[in-house]
Amino acid sequence: MEKNFIERLMEDVSQKSSRVLVGLDPVIESMPESFVRPILREKGNNNEGCAEAIWIFNKKLIEGLADIAVAFKPQIAFYEAYGIAGMQAYSRTLKAIREHGILAIGDIKRGDIGSTAEAYATGHLGHGSEFEADAVTVNPYLGIDSIRPFLKYVDQNGKGLFVLAKTSNSSSSEFQDLDTIDQKCSTNIKLYQRVSAKISEWGKNSISGNYSSVGAVVGATHPSTLSELRKMYPHIPFLIPGYGAQGATAKDIIHGFDSNGHGAIVNSSRGIIFAGGKDTSNFVSDARIAAIKMRDEIENALKG
Amino acid sequence: MEKNFIERLMEDVSQKSSRVLVGLDPVIESMPESFVRPILREKGNNNEGCAEAIWIFNKKLIEGLADIAVAFKPQIAFYEAYGIAGMQAYSRTLKAIREHGILAIGDIKRGDIGSTAEAYATGHLGHGSEFEADAVTVNPYLGIDSIRPFLKYVDQNGKGLFVLAKTSNSSSSEFQDLDTIDQKCSTNIKLYQRVSAKISEWGKNSISGNYSSVGAVVGATHPSTLSELRKMYPHIPFLIPGYGAQGATAKDIIHGFDSNGHGAIVNSSRGIIFAGGKDTSNFVSDARIAAIKMRDEIENALKG
Repeated sequence: MEKNFIERLMEDVSQKSSRVLVGLDPVIESMPESFVRPILREKGNNNEGCAEAIWIFNKKLIEGLADIAVAFKPQIAFYEAYGIAGMQAYSRTLKAIREHGILAIGDIKRGDIGSTAEAYATGHLGHGSEFEADAVTVNPYLGIDSIRPFLKYVDQNGKGLFVLAKTSNSSSSEFQDLDTIDQKCSTNIKLYQRVSAKISEWGKNSISGNYSSVGAVVGATHPSTLSELRKMYPHIPFLIPGYGAQGATAKDIIHGFDSNGHGAIVNSSRGIIFAGGKDTSNFVSDARIAAIKMRDEIENALKG
Repeated sequence: MEKNFIERLMEDVSQKSSRVLVGLDPVIESMPESFVRPILREKGNNNEGCAEAIWIFNKKLIEGLADIAVAFKPQIAFYEAYGIAGMQAYSRTLKAIREHGILAIGDIKRGDIGSTAEAYATGHLGHGSEFEADAVTVNPYLGIDSIRPFLKYVDQNGKGLFVLAKTSNSSSSEFQDLDTIDQKCSTNIKLYQRVSAKISEWGKNSISGNYSSVGAVVGATHPSTLSELRKMYPHIPFLIPGYGAQGATAKDIIHGFDSNGHGAIVNSSRGIIFAGGKDTSNFVSDARIAAIKMRDEIENALKG
């Protein structure tokens, strides 16, 4: 039988000695002038031209970072912003990642009632669908109804899932950190802790080796939360956003890993793909330098 | 100055004497055989053929229900499920609704960190964007960071927003009903109540007449919640899903309205658009009958 998501991820982490998840969050205004201008001139300064630039930009990054990135994570919002042509670029990007034999995580954060969640799951994890990824991110606010259709693809098709627990943004405290009352014991439990407990439960049927194919999104900007959840839920793999451009460093994220250096992948998007700024003449080589630096910072922090 | 979202909605409710929000949630397998078969035969039994069927299905419903539906709400998941062609059908559906002078609510339930939420807001509320709607639904789990970019379009471009508070599905209780601890007073507050308080705050700058352009999604399946939130937040308009196929009736939703019969719109999707079943030869007329029945049930319940 083919390997499932978490088995592939663990294997790729070992083979590449990398925990770097490269976010493909393209923004035309942040791309190098010398790259983007000729494309827009030829294809038009409109959604079609922008989508073409995004696609070529991503393609070059996927090829250039294939040996360093343990997976790529296109954030679908940055493609939806460019309409139909943008969605075509999203589809082509996912296909290119997977054709390179690299895991593609669709950062879609969907969450809806059962019948609707089924449609989302089909669209984003269904075999041969145009937006098919190896794993996707989802939002827990609607509870298990919104998660179950995705779990079917985890259990039956070897896909992966990352459920938002504690996000990297500053207003994540607004609801996720609320103390909720536990009827069973005297201590109170924060909302993100309760969500994490459910994630552990939702993923208990899909554990291979030490980890489940159902993971949690926990922001790099909350080191103590990473540490706490790592101890409490040894089987939940973490997708850790917030490295680099959002301010977190290697020291912040090491607590998300187990003593073998497993159990998490760390995302950086802007910090890698736009590393060379708008004036660079070689954004791929700049991105490589940034990605290698990040990879080595994490490896060294884990050894230290 | 042009009317903003809530002004248009209130006016349309009065003019049409209708609170019916028709959900355009197309599923090929649920469409009438005699309608869908010829299209798939001609265009292909694939995403392109399905998207063509969806588009024609929606177009006929928009034309046929224009005088009864106070707004239409395409649920984007059912379009994403058909890939790029599906997204094209979504775009064409939104355009057709708006060209008929009817409000289009994009049911997208997006929620992400600031920079990403900005991309979503641009894509779904930006002027002239291919997925432009008059209002969209959003998910509150990430807090104000994820809402702020949408509020900009509410304040500056007259758009509307409906934030999930208490959803219609059964597992909405899992997190939304959790008791959270209030530091200020002795009573505990449920998560959805706290979210509702924030929605009220987020919408306080966009009140026209009695209501804000920032509303809440509150399921018809929770009548006492509707009643409670209506009393507590007189300025929040409600988008009430769960009528019909999900089991709620007119008696369940009247508590979501104020004493003048204002302040809410009620969604039914499958119960209207698939009212005639798979064997009907005229789904538009079946949908009209179902929509008129629903409109009148609500009007009568409000009078009674």
